[in-house]
Amino acid sequence: MSKYAPSLTKAHQAFLSDLFPHDGCVLSPEGLAVFSADASGERAMPWAVVRPETREQVQEFLKWADVERMPIYGRARGTGRVGSAVPSLGGVVVSMLRMNQILDVNEDDFVAVVQPGVVTADLQAACAAKQLFYPPDPASVKISTIGGNIATCAGGLKAVKYGVTRDWVLGIEAVLPGGRVLHMGGRSHKDVVGLDLKRLFAGSNGTLGLFTELTVKLIPLPEASASVLVGFFDLASSMEGAKAVFRAGVLPAACEFMDGPTIQAIRMGDDIPLADDAQAALLLMVDGTQKGVDAEVRRMVAALESVHPVSMEVGSGAEAEALWDVRRSISPSSFRIKPDKLAEDISVPRGSVGQAVAAAHDIGREHGLQVLCFGHLGDGNIHVSIMHDGAVQNEVESAHLAKDVVFRMALSLGGTISGEHGTGLTKASFVSEQLSVDELQLMADIRHVFDPNGIMNPGKGL
Amino acid sequence: MSKYAPSLTKAHQAFLSDLFPHDGCVLSPEGLAVFSADASGERAMPWAVVRPETREQVQEFLKWADVERMPIYGRARGTGRVGSAVPSLGGVVVSMLRMNQILDVNEDDFVAVVQPGVVTADLQAACAAKQLFYPPDPASVKISTIGGNIATCAGGLKAVKYGVTRDWVLGIEAVLPGGRVLHMGGRSHKDVVGLDLKRLFAGSNGTLGLFTELTVKLIPLPEASASVLVGFFDLASSMEGAKAVFRAGVLPAACEFMDGPTIQAIRMGDDIPLADDAQAALLLMVDGTQKGVDAEVRRMVAALESVHPVSMEVGSGAEAEALWDVRRSISPSSFRIKPDKLAEDISVPRGSVGQAVAAAHDIGREHGLQVLCFGHLGDGNIHVSIMHDGAVQNEVESAHLAKDVVFRMALSLGGTISGEHGTGLTKASFVSEQLSVDELQLMADIRHVFDPNGIMNPGKGL
Repeated sequence: MSKYAPSLTKAHQAFLSDLFPHDGCVLSPEGLAVFSADASGERAMPWAVVRPETREQVQEFLKWADVERMPIYGRARGTGRVGSAVPSLGGVVVSMLRMNQILDVNEDDFVAVVQPGVVTADLQAACAAKQLFYPPDPASVKISTIGGNIATCAGGLKAVKYGVTRDWVLGIEAVLPGGRVLHMGGRSHKDVVGLDLKRLFAGSNGTLGLFTELTVKLIPLPEASASVLVGFFDLASSMEGAKAVFRAGVLPAACEFMDGPTIQAIRMGDDIPLADDAQAALLLMVDGTQKGVDAEVRRMVAALESVHPVSMEVGSGAEAEALWDVRRSISPSSFRIKPDKLAEDISVPRGSVGQAVAAAHDIGREHGLQVLCFGHLGDGNIHVSIMHDGAVQNEVESAHLAKDVVFRMALSLGGTISGEHGTGLTKASFVSEQLSVDELQLMADIRHVFDPNGIMNPGKGL
Repeated sequence: MSKYAPSLTKAHQAFLSDLFPHDGCVLSPEGLAVFSADASGERAMPWAVVRPETREQVQEFLKWADVERMPIYGRARGTGRVGSAVPSLGGVVVSMLRMNQILDVNEDDFVAVVQPGVVTADLQAACAAKQLFYPPDPASVKISTIGGNIATCAGGLKAVKYGVTRDWVLGIEAVLPGGRVLHMGGRSHKDVVGLDLKRLFAGSNGTLGLFTELTVKLIPLPEASASVLVGFFDLASSMEGAKAVFRAGVLPAACEFMDGPTIQAIRMGDDIPLADDAQAALLLMVDGTQKGVDAEVRRMVAALESVHPVSMEVGSGAEAEALWDVRRSISPSSFRIKPDKLAEDISVPRGSVGQAVAAAHDIGREHGLQVLCFGHLGDGNIHVSIMHDGAVQNEVESAHLAKDVVFRMALSLGGTISGEHGTGLTKASFVSEQLSVDELQLMADIRHVFDPNGIMNPGKGL
């Protein structure tokens, strides 16, 4: 017998409708369907969706959920790629989107205090208006929320210089199952009193509690930035190019790469500012003061030239945006090759990226599929897209087999099966290949400390 | 009855002498005395000291210690300021100083792999030889170890730009009570598989396990740096000066301040490059490419001039070292005022530093004692030195009373009782004023997951 409530009773429905009046509680099948999936395509119908507007509602709700052994799935914009927000055991989805106030952007304390449902780009804009900067920028930044970003420890383009989301979290207010409220950390930039619970919550994927207020660290907004798109004859040269930049003492704010198949896919529909014979490319950005940026660009260009690129474009402002359009076009362009893809995000030690990409290409060939590799070279985080046709059964099977081999390849290089997407449902079966039995047991025991009845985001194999 | 072994029996001694042959096991009173204290002055005699050289020894040892319910105190150079390494319940001190190999400094992966007993400055030098940079630099960097730095989540001068020690930890191999070995994280710069156990170990003060191997993130070594020492008429102007620098878009690598009493204490014995009427000073550093640094210095100087400083010295290389000598002279100079001090390290929201320093001065006056404030303005981390004469009983009492009021003042400003030293023995009684009953219980429960018998660094009130 499951330890969870088997269904949502009439009494449960009445409780939820009462606690979340008007359209704060969704029970209709059409309404629920909207909350059944995330960007992974995984899908499971929740029994109810609730939309809290206050911390007090979250407390009452989690008190009830714990008593009722109700599976609970925190959710914001549903942009996750691995099914972490999918209510795989039914239960109640909690949409945090109505808790969407920016409470403070503070130029003296260099912090922002926000509710979890704030879209990260909106937070960044509010910061920029005061010449402040919140650096983490997952690709989804314009649509995903700060709560979701912290729950998943979102990565992004600028992690090579600025770190990932967890590095910017100073304070978390969260409600635990049973309704206890924790105020972890706060506005102090340094704090070493006790275990670092707030960092444990970052990346915990809603398994420990629900966020109700978040405090993040800010820095001064860099005055200027510039970008360089540089093409190479082959992948190995592009890796050498990146090494030359770092060796020249430049820490780029972004250091992206794309392989030959990725460039080809873009070319199938778009003109791009890369030489025709480019079989690999780097897209680098530096930021800082205008004069510092000018100096770093000169140094970066000199370093790249030493590796004999086939083309190089430098730009700032609108010109830089045109270069970044190439990066942004990768995902839509990939579907020119095949209508479907498995989009993975392995991460490997930085020096092994070339080897990992070559191995991914081989794996694709062995499975009769085209594999595109691109992503965050600067931190070893490779997006591996295994292109296939979902209507062709043996391609689907091959793609899934290839994905398994890609994961094992990453692990064999000392890497990880996920640099930024998480494991959710789609990688659940691989977690035990990366983590030891001891680690998994310790993680389960830690979750049990916060959530003794296991109601928070259950069914994810973690 | 205590849950711990009441003493070290002959059989225990024989086991330890066998596992740690030659001088690997210390049992003589003179030998043990060396390991009884740390830089806090707190003191308690251990029953034995062991000096492992291999992970296997650590495993065997922690298997035995768990069975025997033996209190265990990990220790490196004993530079801690709060008694965290002091064996307050007796038991066995584990000196990690013989595990002191730099195993890898890797220019391709941008990581270093080290044993815990490596002195942090030695690691930094090994990195610098390859044009790589490990930024965290606690004041003790020349004598303290990377293992101790990670165990305490050491802060330091450069945290304002580069973050604290925990932000640089990629992988931790640790042995748990009972002898299980955990390999958490590794050489990947990004990893979001499972809860972030390695960051939980960072700052856990030896309460979860003993480190045997550590992997830290590196970046390219900045080519250049420059420093500015600037004097102001009063504390409020110095705070305005720092604000002006940040407002100008400069993120300094270090942003230190010192108050009037601190400047006076230095002047009692040294000539310093500050105008005679300086009643507060800032010491700022920027780093990066040479041209970037030049540009940032110009901008910083312009920003500071807008606040009408009374003096300003700019330097790089040896000239900068002369400016930093002022900072380094603070601690020895303070004893010109009184022979003893309570040296605290509160942290407050950055914008409240001026208010906190003024309050600390008031508290000193009310207790008839001189209080010096200096430290890491950039991250709100203030070193408060309460000067007194330890031979005069009522001064000692006043100093301790003043310390209590300083802690409560920090908490009332939304700050913390420790930005980087930790709480150990000296602040143990204040932990419950900062952390809630729920947080304390959760932390205890998490420690119980790793250390069910509570043998790791017990007796610290945390």
